[in-house]
Amino acid sequence: MPSHVELAAMRRAIGISATGLGRTSPNPPVGCVILDQEGAVVGEGYHLRKGEAHAEVNALAAAGDRAQGGTAVVTLEPCNHHGRTPPCRQALLDAGVHRVLIAVMDPTSRGDGGASVLRDAGVTVETGVLEDEALTVLGPWLTATTSGRPVVTWPYLVDGTAVRALPDELLAAEVLRQHADAILRPDGRVTEAVPDSHGPGILHLRDINPAVELPAAALKSIHGGGVRSLLLSGHADLGERFASAGLVDRIVAYLAPVTPSSEGYSGLPLPGLPRGFRITAAGRGSSMVRVEAEPI
Amino acid sequence: MPSHVELAAMRRAIGISATGLGRTSPNPPVGCVILDQEGAVVGEGYHLRKGEAHAEVNALAAAGDRAQGGTAVVTLEPCNHHGRTPPCRQALLDAGVHRVLIAVMDPTSRGDGGASVLRDAGVTVETGVLEDEALTVLGPWLTATTSGRPVVTWPYLVDGTAVRALPDELLAAEVLRQHADAILRPDGRVTEAVPDSHGPGILHLRDINPAVELPAAALKSIHGGGVRSLLLSGHADLGERFASAGLVDRIVAYLAPVTPSSEGYSGLPLPGLPRGFRITAAGRGSSMVRVEAEPI
Ligand SMILES: [Zn+2]
Ligand SMILES: [Zn+2]
Repeated sequence: MPSHVELAAMRRAIGISATGLGRTSPNPPVGCVILDQEGAVVGEGYHLRKGEAHAEVNALAAAGDRAQGGTAVVTLEPCNHHGRTPPCRQALLDAGVHRVLIAVMDPTSRGDGGASVLRDAGVTVETGVLEDEALTVLGPWLTATTSGRPVVTWPYLVDGTAVRALPDELLAAEVLRQHADAILRPDGRVTEAVPDSHGPGILHLRDINPAVELPAAALKSIHGGGVRSLLLSGHADLGERFASAGLVDRIVAYLAPVTPSSEGYSGLPLPGLPRGFRITAAGRGSSMVRVEAEPI
Repeated sequence: MPSHVELAAMRRAIGISATGLGRTSPNPPVGCVILDQEGAVVGEGYHLRKGEAHAEVNALAAAGDRAQGGTAVVTLEPCNHHGRTPPCRQALLDAGVHRVLIAVMDPTSRGDGGASVLRDAGVTVETGVLEDEALTVLGPWLTATTSGRPVVTWPYLVDGTAVRALPDELLAAEVLRQHADAILRPDGRVTEAVPDSHGPGILHLRDINPAVELPAAALKSIHGGGVRSLLLSGHADLGERFASAGLVDRIVAYLAPVTPSSEGYSGLPLPGLPRGFRITAAGRGSSMVRVEAEPI
């Protein structure tokens, strides 16, 4: 059973892991806190960007010798593979950690991940610690990883009775809110959501032709390019094709202010949600209402 | 059974009702759509601000004669009392509406609200239509109304190992996100969250002394002043007093960037959530992580 201090450490690890949201794809945003033998916090770290150090390595570097005999609290199962960096399970063993608490197991390890190696080496490992809370950060990555396609959000503007693409400033707000990696444009270009000043972009994709290509094939290709969270930019045709194929995970509808004319309403059909979606949140900004919806 | 068109109309009514969030207290933010006999949309409206027309009245005004024999789709049970405006159930009867769909029943009517009067007058009334979805807008008002205290959000900044009040720009962002009516300051002043340029403020309250006054008594008094959504501004002592009394509905913690010194960490306790809270959302802005938590 995790102690109160260990649960607090996991919540701290979850919190700092969110620093990596929208920056780490195709890697997951992970956080880690190191406690010493007495349960004092001696280090914390997170994975900030693909190609940089993993959360465990950063946290162990901050802890130094004080990790010896201590506990590592980490939001995702430590990795067991040699990639750009050595496997984190080895870094934990080298640091002399005696106990490891994990929130979410890594589905890509297929049971042969860091947890089993750590157990074999005599480390106490507990898994599923505050898993639901950790999924508030890791959920989209996990969904994209297990489904083999990016998580898809379709934001649009309801202007009178028309469904239109979002203006740039609202699209930028959604990029940040959804921590999106990329945007699929109506003309088929897939662009980085936030051009990365720290290095080359993650996207070197062929263009998609959304008018003729099957949505599932387009998304598989975009996932192959390292995208884990995608925005559909654009008009009703594009979004409805993806939605009717069951490939939209979230809709965000902005409603322009209602301005009834002196003749009242035209009686045109309601510009509403596609069938099969339900409202999950609603709020307002300075001039527009913002409604979120998800598949029922 | 509501038709597909009627469900779409209710979702439209829920969407536009959000325009009133943060503006209507102590009234609820309600939306209404009018369909004519053929199911065409002929009017819509919402309650924008205390003292102005209710949603049904605005929607009926837009519909005019075309409401005759039609259907009113409204997110909250129409009112049955003479307040600043005549009761909406009478406006619906006068307009010749034959059918009324309601999402959420008004707990203040105690079963003697507009629905029963409309039924007695021969109107077909269906209730509970997309109730869960309507509660994404009406939920805080409903909670505050049934509990007799405002919904309370405690936002704070975690800076190193200290819990501090939010800087002004982050507090302003939370006012908008939470659609807050008022802010309880550490010195006991209760200020309007958004000074209203359209009329006198809703707050003419005695000052609260949060250092000595019981949180429940303070909230009852603030509720009496018309506040349905309150932010606690301030330091750990204030928020923890309210949280340990079970009077905090949501925590929003901003985490300043982690900057380990060359000596590593001090080993001070984690500045975490109060006991009894769990993380429900996490994201990041340009420089800080934002974590939401609610009582378990
Ligand atoms: Zn790793
Ligand atoms: Zn009314």
